[in-house]
This record gives sequence, C-alpha cells and structure tokens, in this order.
Amino acid sequence: MDYRNKTVLVTGGLGFIGSNLAVRLSEMGARVTIVDSSRPGCGANPYNIASVADRLRLITRDLGEAQDFAEALRSCDVVFNLAGEVSHIHSMMAPERDLEINTAAQLRFLEILRRERPGVRVVYAGTRQVYGAPRYLPVDEDHPVEPVDYNGVHKHAASQYHLMLSRVGALDAVVLRLTNVYGPRMALRIPCQGVLSAFLRRALLGEDLEVYDSGEQLRDPVHVDDVVEAFLLAGAASSLRARTYNVGGPEALSLRQIAETIAQLTGVRVVTRPFPADRKRIDIGSYRADSSRFQRDFAWSPRIRFAEGIRRSIEWYRQHFEHYLDAHRPALCGMPEHQGRQRRLKLVPA
Amino acid sequence: MDYRNKTVLVTGGLGFIGSNLAVRLSEMGARVTIVDSSRPGCGANPYNIASVADRLRLITRDLGEAQDFAEALRSCDVVFNLAGEVSHIHSMMAPERDLEINTAAQLRFLEILRRERPGVRVVYAGTRQVYGAPRYLPVDEDHPVEPVDYNGVHKHAASQYHLMLSRVGALDAVVLRLTNVYGPRMALRIPCQGVLSAFLRRALLGEDLEVYDSGEQLRDPVHVDDVVEAFLLAGAASSLRARTYNVGGPEALSLRQIAETIAQLTGVRVVTRPFPADRKRIDIGSYRADSSRFQRDFAWSPRIRFAEGIRRSIEWYRQHFEHYLDAHRPALCGMPEHQGRQRRLKLVPA
Repeated sequence: MDYRNKTVLVTGGLGFIGSNLAVRLSEMGARVTIVDSSRPGCGANPYNIASVADRLRLITRDLGEAQDFAEALRSCDVVFNLAGEVSHIHSMMAPERDLEINTAAQLRFLEILRRERPGVRVVYAGTRQVYGAPRYLPVDEDHPVEPVDYNGVHKHAASQYHLMLSRVGALDAVVLRLTNVYGPRMALRIPCQGVLSAFLRRALLGEDLEVYDSGEQLRDPVHVDDVVEAFLLAGAASSLRARTYNVGGPEALSLRQIAETIAQLTGVRVVTRPFPADRKRIDIGSYRADSSRFQRDFAWSPRIRFAEGIRRSIEWYRQHFEHYLDAHRPALCGMPEHQGRQRRLKLVPA
Repeated sequence: MDYRNKTVLVTGGLGFIGSNLAVRLSEMGARVTIVDSSRPGCGANPYNIASVADRLRLITRDLGEAQDFAEALRSCDVVFNLAGEVSHIHSMMAPERDLEINTAAQLRFLEILRRERPGVRVVYAGTRQVYGAPRYLPVDEDHPVEPVDYNGVHKHAASQYHLMLSRVGALDAVVLRLTNVYGPRMALRIPCQGVLSAFLRRALLGEDLEVYDSGEQLRDPVHVDDVVEAFLLAGAASSLRARTYNVGGPEALSLRQIAETIAQLTGVRVVTRPFPADRKRIDIGSYRADSSRFQRDFAWSPRIRFAEGIRRSIEWYRQHFEHYLDAHRPALCGMPEHQGRQRRLKLVPA
C-alpha cells in the first residue's frame, strides 16, 4: 500500500474522518487535495489539518460545485469521498437540507468526476444508519436497508449512485458502511452528532452522562485509525471483490459500558433516565457489524480496543481542548431550530 | 372494496396509470382529486380523463408545491402516489431533473402530507427498475436493489421515504413495484418510455419493430386494468402485512414474442438488429416478477393475458388515435438533448 506521490482527493477533508485520512495520506507522501465547504453543522474544523496544512491543497467549495474544481479531479489517482452531513437528528429537522448535502451535491460531483476522470477508484463513506433497527446481529451487508431517518435514505441514495455508476462502467467505486467511529478530531462542539460525540463532550466538560433505561443496547465503536486504514486499503486495491463492505469495531459494548468507561476516565457520573418517547420511536436497539467480508478481502482487522482508544482520545482532546471545546463559544449546530438549545460551554479542568 | 364517497388523491393522475386509476375511481363513486404538473416528458395527457373530467377536481401543480394544495390533503382517505418520470434514458441524460422530479418533489410532498394528514394510507407506484439486472428469476421483493440508471436510484429513494415515514408512524404507506405496464392511455408520443410504448407507437404508425439480437430476454407485461385493481386493493386494505410488493404480469414472454404479437395485429414486420453497445451495457437481460406475496395477501391475480390485452389496446388506440399519435405534431420528449431525434409522426391507416 504505497501512497507516495499518489494524487488523492479527500472530500470532507476538514471533517472528523476525512481529516484523519488526509493527515495520514500527507504523512505517507501523497499529494493531497481537500475539498470541503465548511458548511455549518457538518463538522469541518481547519485545526484538524493544522499539522499538514502547508503540505496540502485546500479547495473551499461545496461538492455540488464540482464544475469549479474540475481540474483537480482530472489528475486524481484515488478519490476518498467523505463529504456530507452525519446527523440523523438534523436530517429529520431539515430534510431538504440533508437531501441537498448528502444526495444532490454527490450527484453533481459524481457526474463531473465521471466526465473528468472516468473509471477512477472512489471510496465512499457509507453508514450503518442505512440498516435501521437490525433484524439480526451481527449485521452483514445483505441485511435489508430499512433506515429510520432521512439521513439513512439520503446516504443510501448516494451509495447507490456510486454502485450504479460502477455497474455501467463510469467509476470504480466501493462503499464502506461505517459503524460508530470515534477518536481525535471529532466535532464535539456540534450537538446531534451521535452518542459517542455527545458522551465525550459532556465528560470533557465535567457533565454527567445520561443513559436511557438499562442502556443495554450494543454498539461496536471503531477507532478512526482503524477506519483510516480501511479507507487506505480500499483505495489502493488493484481490483475489488465486492463494492459494499461493513466496517465495524473489534468488540460490542453496551451504551452503559461505553458511558461508564468514559465516566471513569474523566471523573463524571453515569445517570439513568427513562427513555424519552420521541427517542424510543427511532431507537434502533442493538447494533453490531459483521465486517468479515472486509476482513477477508483486505486482510484488515480493527486493532484498537475501546478502553485503550477512548483513553488516548480523551488525552488528545485535553491537549487540544480549545480547538474542540471552546469555552467562550456556544455549541455550533447549524440548525436554526436548535438555536434555543445551544448554550455556552463550561471550561472544566482536565 | 368500496370507494363510494371516499375522498382520494391521485398524484400524476393525468399520466398513463394514474389516469386509468382516476377514471376507475370516479366510476366507482369516489371523490377524486388529481394533482398533476403536466411537466413535458412525464406523460400527462388531459384527454386521458376526458370521460370523467366533470366529476373530478384537477390541481395543476407540481408535487413539490404541496404547500399550495395542503387543504386537499387534509381531507384525504387514501393517496395514490403515481407522479413521476419513468424514463431511465431521460434520467441518464438529465440526472438532476430526475432527482428533482422523482425524489425532491416527493420529499416535499410527503412532509406536507404527514403534517396535514398524519397516518394516511399512501400507495406508491414503485418500479422493477430498482432491481437492475436480475440475479435470479422470478424476482421477489428480497432481491437486491441494484439499479442500472438514475431513475432506479431516485425511485428507490422515494420508496424509502414512504417506508421510513411508515416506520416512524408518520404515514401508512405501501409500495407496489410494477413490471412493464401496458394498455390504454400510454404516452405513446414520448420516446424513451420503455419497450412496450415504443413497439406500440411504431406499429400503429406502420413502422417495423426492431429487436436486438435474438430478442430472447423475457418480460412479464401486465395490463393496466390489473394494475389499477392492485392499487385499489392496496388502498382499501384495513391493515398491511407487508409494505413492499411486486406486481407483475400473468406470463413471461420474450421481447421477440411480444414484438411478433404486436406486429401480427398491426401488419408490420419484426426486424433483427445487432445489440447496440451502449444499450447492451445497460441491458438488464430477462425479468419476471414473483408477485406471490401480493397475490397471497390481497387475493389478486393478473387476469388479462398479453395476446388479449394488447389486441384490445391496439383497438383502443385506433379509436383514439389523434389523442395519442397526432400526425401533425412532433413526438414530445421534454429533453432538449432529444430535439434532434424528434420527428413528425406519419399517419397510417388503421
């Protein structure tokens, strides 16, 4: 897996996973171009790439304006396509915004890409969200697609674009359906980014963590370094045996276990709340990915266990606190509807 | 199945299937409101509902402008949702147009509908297009979704809207995935509407029918009267056992058999052409629906065999020739890119 002097494009490269990937690619000697709109609410943070900023090119454009950066596509060896909005709560509050960001912009981008760089390898960041409430565990790639929110519908449509364009020979794409990812560079300032982000934010601010009812629902968190490795492998493979792969973590933990691990490392408490009715309705229960297809085809496995990965993450956020949990600015969300719920963050000692 | 005095909405009610359904509902004594944008290329034809025009209400609006006809949604007992663009060729020529018509407009419509008439039964016209090239025959509802064009991706996203909103309790929707439908009121003037429309148009104009290579690919054409019956049953069922159903025809015929049947009834010839490379690439091979789920749950079966159904259809088009194959107007398509390929139609004696 040699990325030296490879020309790569990372869409959403200022976001959580995209920036970890861009930093890693830069360190490996790739020529990295990032496309990122920095749209409020989507997780872009220029600090994410501070360590390699002088070594890469940043195009501050929306993915849907790909005609404006067509020349950057022409020379690409690999496209890592991670731009998007991940919040399912945002998607239910503003469905058309989610359609625009996650589907329409992707359509415009892929149409320009297929014209400028036909047949190029594209690795798209899909999501376990598309499965909805699992019918069985672990969830393999043949599990029915039954999302419980607009975000799942729109991200699935975007993956269908990638797969359809590969079927007709226009692109050579692969979709990685990611489970809950955590690690450095998460957008902790933005509420509604999922349970791991919320737990980390609260714990780092000294607030108690809340679990609903027994908190026994399983998740299989995967460290972003393991995810980056999966993207690199999928981008470099000379041929693909399949085009859709689950990428999950090394172990299944209950939300209570996850909360307790984080609480223990940060000195906060875990409190139990009754399940709010509106949350219960869209609760997916337990999730655990069956990633054996990806493990088999790419000789990959998730190496970082949660207890270790989250400890290192918390250390990292304490070192970079002001860039992720600025005490003097309100939590950013991007949803006008959420303004009332945004509040000033409190600085707590590490 | 009693629709007397029921208030029903038919979106796309000036189109092929929608108008057949609206006419039938009117004849059954339902209070019918049609919403249809009459957008060029999508098959609307006011003549389709001429026989019942004084008995129904027509709202000439795009589905995406649902805020302008919210009051019509408030009183609905059932929504038959057939508005859309069916051409997969159009969708590959103008993908954003297809996204707008088949996905974005549906999103806006359904968001208004769930607000104005929460929990209402919606019967959505899905398509076999979502399956792509079948992995096995007959194709059941669990077959993977692998469309080979944007139309399939966008229609699938719209069905996912219906199913997701039913999962969260906002609507009570059912998706009928239709095979090749034929019968009176097809949009024969529009090219790119599928093989049955093209065969009928050519044959009625006295032109030879072309099949590619052996023409051995199977289709299971279903008569629109059988499809209308399926919609009526799905709209009236007090509860639903499933939310996705295939609706196919009574028999599988090769494209050559289909062409020969039509040729024999119209006095034209069937000629063989080599498969054009660009067509071959998106050819789905043979298709035959497994409709046993719908047959079992609704005690329905397709009653009209092709030889009889197509004979009656040809008779019907000869009686209404000028409304479907006007000799003095060019074929309508709606695609600027197709203007060069549009030509004046020739009138031939019946």
